[in-house]
Amino acid sequence: MSADLHHAPRDLSRDGFGALFRPATIAVAGVSARSAGQGNKFIQRLRAAGYAGAIYPIHPTETRLEGLPAYPSLADTPEPIDYAFIAIPAEAVPPLLASARHRVRFAQVMSSGFGEGGRGGALREALAQAVRQGGMRLLGPNCMGIYSPSGRVTFTDGRMGDAGTVGVLSQSGGLSIDIVRNGEYRGLRFSGVVSLGNCLDVDPGDLLEYYIEDPGTRVIGAYIEEIRDGRRFFDLLRRARARKPVVLLKGGRTGQGQRAAASHTGSLASNDQVWRALASQTGSILVDTMEDFIDALVALEHEADLSPSFDGRVVLFGNGGGASVLAADAFGRAGIDVPELRAGTIAALQRLGIPSGAGLENPLDVPANILDRDHGALARGILAAVVETERPGAVIAHLNLPVILGYRQGALMDELVHAVIELKAALPQDVRLFLVLRSPGQADLETLRQAYVHQAMRAGIQVFLGLPAAARALAALRDYRRFRDTRPA
Amino acid sequence: MSADLHHAPRDLSRDGFGALFRPATIAVAGVSARSAGQGNKFIQRLRAAGYAGAIYPIHPTETRLEGLPAYPSLADTPEPIDYAFIAIPAEAVPPLLASARHRVRFAQVMSSGFGEGGRGGALREALAQAVRQGGMRLLGPNCMGIYSPSGRVTFTDGRMGDAGTVGVLSQSGGLSIDIVRNGEYRGLRFSGVVSLGNCLDVDPGDLLEYYIEDPGTRVIGAYIEEIRDGRRFFDLLRRARARKPVVLLKGGRTGQGQRAAASHTGSLASNDQVWRALASQTGSILVDTMEDFIDALVALEHEADLSPSFDGRVVLFGNGGGASVLAADAFGRAGIDVPELRAGTIAALQRLGIPSGAGLENPLDVPANILDRDHGALARGILAAVVETERPGAVIAHLNLPVILGYRQGALMDELVHAVIELKAALPQDVRLFLVLRSPGQADLETLRQAYVHQAMRAGIQVFLGLPAAARALAALRDYRRFRDTRPA
Repeated sequence: MSADLHHAPRDLSRDGFGALFRPATIAVAGVSARSAGQGNKFIQRLRAAGYAGAIYPIHPTETRLEGLPAYPSLADTPEPIDYAFIAIPAEAVPPLLASARHRVRFAQVMSSGFGEGGRGGALREALAQAVRQGGMRLLGPNCMGIYSPSGRVTFTDGRMGDAGTVGVLSQSGGLSIDIVRNGEYRGLRFSGVVSLGNCLDVDPGDLLEYYIEDPGTRVIGAYIEEIRDGRRFFDLLRRARARKPVVLLKGGRTGQGQRAAASHTGSLASNDQVWRALASQTGSILVDTMEDFIDALVALEHEADLSPSFDGRVVLFGNGGGASVLAADAFGRAGIDVPELRAGTIAALQRLGIPSGAGLENPLDVPANILDRDHGALARGILAAVVETERPGAVIAHLNLPVILGYRQGALMDELVHAVIELKAALPQDVRLFLVLRSPGQADLETLRQAYVHQAMRAGIQVFLGLPAAARALAALRDYRRFRDTRPA
Repeated sequence: MSADLHHAPRDLSRDGFGALFRPATIAVAGVSARSAGQGNKFIQRLRAAGYAGAIYPIHPTETRLEGLPAYPSLADTPEPIDYAFIAIPAEAVPPLLASARHRVRFAQVMSSGFGEGGRGGALREALAQAVRQGGMRLLGPNCMGIYSPSGRVTFTDGRMGDAGTVGVLSQSGGLSIDIVRNGEYRGLRFSGVVSLGNCLDVDPGDLLEYYIEDPGTRVIGAYIEEIRDGRRFFDLLRRARARKPVVLLKGGRTGQGQRAAASHTGSLASNDQVWRALASQTGSILVDTMEDFIDALVALEHEADLSPSFDGRVVLFGNGGGASVLAADAFGRAGIDVPELRAGTIAALQRLGIPSGAGLENPLDVPANILDRDHGALARGILAAVVETERPGAVIAHLNLPVILGYRQGALMDELVHAVIELKAALPQDVRLFLVLRSPGQADLETLRQAYVHQAMRAGIQVFLGLPAAARALAALRDYRRFRDTRPA
């Protein structure tokens, strides 16, 4: 551990990390004149993302790369560097960083080969020393770097998403890409996704602290394999008093997962009990899978702002009798109440003249052919009556796409999604609204589903892809609120 | 319960049910000359599916419907009827069936309105009497009927799948459609999917018995809300001695789910403990969600034939370090061992010359850029070495589509799927092989994923959409095998 920089003086204010998320100047080492190196790819991505700052390729001999003037070292660029992207062979990294003359704020080392022991261990030691000498903060080594929609810096190909309020840190580069892809498919918008790699310097605690303080971040997600400074991480979470929800996906909670993590990032074994205790003592949400991680971020994105608590009672409304029964079971297993409707609610629903074939029970199961009769007016009426008379903690509207889309070339689907969006606009603050869009996965349905997901998410409605997933996410929300509401600041 | 026919003489041999799954003659009541009634839709579906038998529309006054000669009653058709599809107002159903003069083997009543009590109760009584008088077996009322690829009879729109070996019964019409859609997306091929509705006559036990005896069915799935004759159902499962796997999705296992089921199909409360006991005493697989239901059917489809047991040890191979760690956790939680590799296996892998950046641990995590170097040869070598030297109970190969598809315009993906299919062709019988295709859900990826799913499933490789899902499915397989292998016939 002598090579670690964890006891180096910390001079990182929030503004300091701002240079990482929104760099005005970027240096890139690992750009090739002939082949498409990682540095070339990175510059191409910056351009495609619309990055507006200066880009300085670094190369020992070339003077022009990717159409830009190149410079022999980090000390030679016309301006100081906010962010240096380094993807060169491991042994070349320490000399490059050592010569930076305190002109670089962050260096992100993508290169691997700095493992414990042997040649890797020596390189790791040299890297640590070079970072001290060069005077920068180090992200990595062995990391993808940063995805920052507000800064237009990205490690993914394809269209970059819009900036948002979800801040993520990840000790796996591959998962950080999965998180961006899965999250944006689900309508999440990120304040940042940071791949931390081997954490020789910048570690999960640093990023957690930044996101807790960052006014642009409302919910925090972390994929963790190893925390070296566990005390600090715990203290940060405890001090934050769940002011912002933190969702933790911890890799290596089983024995064989720990062994896999040791192989992946060299992390030491850590007891699952420790993580459960940490979560329950800090109001953090501990999840088991990537899917639950994304779902919890979707559910919790707006919780930092909301004052009213969640009373734990939900009303389900949608099409599908069997699906409604299984949903009631799923919510029951998650400890969320799907209660019988009050007499007043039943009376209000009866006044709407719902035809036979639809039950006046919770879950409210109304077949698509009945919903189709009046262009969505009945759905609007039912949802309004439920909110006004029953006043549940949450309404879960669910639609089975292949069925609903069969009516009037999709017009019914548009009407029902619109009804849900209308309901959201007039929703009392103490009633939450989840939308579940079920689909078997065919590509043509996925295109439509994604459009509806984004439409609803932009209207502030949390959308899930299945009823059991929605039940688990609402349970996460309930746990978070229960912690926060019983521990006032 | 006086209206029930459960104590009527049972004259249904297996051949009897064959007429339901492969009817030579079909009568259709509920065809309209003007509007598109359910009967019209049914005939159009039969034609689209390539149904080759005779179709006889039944109508009190019309003589020609959907281009076919129509007949005033079920007694007037030129031939006896194997299958009568009935979608007319509830009060018209009993007189129609009563006049069938024992010329109809099965009547499927889609119409609803035969509920307990009041007018519905009287109609229910009249329906039971009409069925006795008419001399047929009744499917329903209030059911979608039958999906039978071998008979080309269907309740779904769109292209019908090929015939296969998965037999399903469902007490929810909507879920029976979901099962067909989700199952076929996943590459399942059905011997039949039967929607049972209110089970006035034909009940889950009848279908279970048929599927157990049917040589064309290798795995059975059932969505159950209520079993009236629980003793018979249990005895059938016990007598079958898990000769064929049975996957049970029971709706209404929580208190609020039971209430929802009572509203949906009028079923009585049943204790979750009872179902758990039934499953553990009969070797049936009890699942919680539609997703797990489909996954278990995929995992178990080939188990009826296999003699070797499953030893519970798996080797994971794929791309993604974090995903591998989380997968090891997911398998650990499912009680499935992801053991350290034997020295001989490590030596065999070292001889393949795997470059640094890939671990020689289980899970075997090999980045896509390394897999890309030799057109899939390394993947083939690793998989062969693992099977030959380690000889695990199962190999789980997993590929992260958005990453793998980025190499050589998808050529690497083709090569890796081909490597897995090659491995399957040479696989010893005691090693199972699962393929997991991960994707964030974009439509363009879904089109490709579905093609790969079908390609692999046709090669006899079970495919799953996520690693936690594969872990749960393999646990279901282990539980089934454990029961079967410890209770020889």
